[in-house]
Amino acid sequence: MQEKVKIAVDAMGGDNAPHEIIKGAVEAVKERKEIQVCLIGKRELITHELSQFSYPKDQIRIEHAQEAIETAEPPVLAIRKKKQSSIVIGMNMVKQKEMDAFISAGSSGAVLVGGQVIVGRIKGIERPPLAPLIPTEKGVSLLIDCGANVDARPSHLAQFARIGSIYMKYVVGVKNPKVAIVNIGAEEEKGNALVKETYPLLKECKDINFTGSIEAREIPHGEADVIVCEAFTGNVILKLYEGLSQTLLHVVKKGLLSTLRSKIGALLIKPALKETMKSFDASAYGGAPLLGLTGLVVKIHGSSKAAEVKNAIIQCVTFHEQEINEKIKNNIGNSDKGKE
Amino acid sequence: MQEKVKIAVDAMGGDNAPHEIIKGAVEAVKERKEIQVCLIGKRELITHELSQFSYPKDQIRIEHAQEAIETAEPPVLAIRKKKQSSIVIGMNMVKQKEMDAFISAGSSGAVLVGGQVIVGRIKGIERPPLAPLIPTEKGVSLLIDCGANVDARPSHLAQFARIGSIYMKYVVGVKNPKVAIVNIGAEEEKGNALVKETYPLLKECKDINFTGSIEAREIPHGEADVIVCEAFTGNVILKLYEGLSQTLLHVVKKGLLSTLRSKIGALLIKPALKETMKSFDASAYGGAPLLGLTGLVVKIHGSSKAAEVKNAIIQCVTFHEQEINEKIKNNIGNSDKGKE
Repeated sequence: MQEKVKIAVDAMGGDNAPHEIIKGAVEAVKERKEIQVCLIGKRELITHELSQFSYPKDQIRIEHAQEAIETAEPPVLAIRKKKQSSIVIGMNMVKQKEMDAFISAGSSGAVLVGGQVIVGRIKGIERPPLAPLIPTEKGVSLLIDCGANVDARPSHLAQFARIGSIYMKYVVGVKNPKVAIVNIGAEEEKGNALVKETYPLLKECKDINFTGSIEAREIPHGEADVIVCEAFTGNVILKLYEGLSQTLLHVVKKGLLSTLRSKIGALLIKPALKETMKSFDASAYGGAPLLGLTGLVVKIHGSSKAAEVKNAIIQCVTFHEQEINEKIKNNIGNSDKGKE
Repeated sequence: MQEKVKIAVDAMGGDNAPHEIIKGAVEAVKERKEIQVCLIGKRELITHELSQFSYPKDQIRIEHAQEAIETAEPPVLAIRKKKQSSIVIGMNMVKQKEMDAFISAGSSGAVLVGGQVIVGRIKGIERPPLAPLIPTEKGVSLLIDCGANVDARPSHLAQFARIGSIYMKYVVGVKNPKVAIVNIGAEEEKGNALVKETYPLLKECKDINFTGSIEAREIPHGEADVIVCEAFTGNVILKLYEGLSQTLLHVVKKGLLSTLRSKIGALLIKPALKETMKSFDASAYGGAPLLGLTGLVVKIHGSSKAAEVKNAIIQCVTFHEQEINEKIKNNIGNSDKGKE
């Protein structure tokens, strides 16, 4: 019998909770027999939502949580005080190895703090980065860090590069992944103080394939597999990706409805266009794992709908099978132990 | 008779120099009678290029420059040593008020350094920012700073906000322009150290309409008229705008050619799509002025073609007529004199 992968899902987090979260969980277990989901949140609410779906009952269970952490709450305080919140309960289940992973669309701050404080870092990992895959012309690239550590130091970025390299190699299957640092010019002497200090550290890293600077213009072309940046820059890149894709599609659609001729054309191209755009939809690639923890924690977008929740749950099976955090621990944690 | 606007153009700078630069200058003078262009560069080369076009001879003259500054050269050294370069000559013409503006597609570093060292800052202006207009769903927004001052301080950003406000009011004609700071969350307590320190300064500014933080996702929707950020972030935004627009169009085009049905549709939508995309083409909005200098210096993209050169030249007429630097001087320079 195939090994079961146990995934705890925060049923209370995100703009579309609990309905879309629960729907996504149902879709995931229907698609993959080896997944067992534990929905964490108000039991009554979840039971009611679940009653609307048919699904294999042995694959979903509920863990009651009487509290929820709101997005606006200061994360450190919230994690400390709200012991009965879905996020704290989920993190504890991962820490206790009761669950293989925890997924939340809730407060980013609380997930980041909870991951570090409750689940805990791998020894030797300085700052666990948040690392989503983003679509490019050639496939996907890993954006690391996209929101966990603002005002990071050069040594953190160098570690992100190594963590990202391991991720792309084992989870995505890219041989000798190309690692580049986001910069405002291609030359080595360009950049801000952080990039200038990080650059030589990356050049020295023997276990990565460092290809130099990457300008933001080249990111969508897929010029690098691992895109290293500090969290502020990474967050700007991720969110501009989202916003600009939406806006351009909106502008294109408006253009298509401007003349009768183009309206007819629009009907003809609709199926092909839809298929193409799907490949460029960031949400199709699941959530962003908080890498370098002793357990698996995945943050998904606050606006996630069922499709994203389902993708993130299924992605956790790969993370679990590939033992991504184990590999980070073995490749980086140990070698950097002395630096802790 | 209408007043002439004298614009010096670096004929040697950029990937497509001198041909596209000269073509753009010819197109500009043919469109606007009040423009007089001075092309700076190797006289023989320019004369040869010009001989391919017909244009009103009295609107274009040549100023010989025997040197050119290359993109890879360290800018401070290049500006100091290459006195006979097109950039240094052009900057000096602006400084001497011989010309009303200088436009270059050459080395960004040299243009930024030359602007400050040769043309000079308005008294009271701490760091002249580079500020291009970017297209949005609602029109255009000003991105300030997009590349001049990496590792800027909070007081610099606060000044960018005020400079940008004046620009949008007088050059673009936006009443009470909305000013926002790029951040990784909407709440005031979010952000990196720079943003957290800048935020209260912006709230205190009485002469701007500060609306708070803007996430990168909202930028293409046109949620703010003036988008304040430090140069590294601004450069990432500007270049991702370019790269992502190109990539998405490329992906859409590929999708359209995937089936026979969509190929027919593509033919029908082509004219409407082209028209729409034109409104979202960053190059249509001319160059980025280096604001807060005692003269007008405009940087255009290294890959600029004739259309962009033409637009930038014509845009200089507006800058000149609106006396943008005069207004910055009167509104900010004087009030901040004591801080110099």
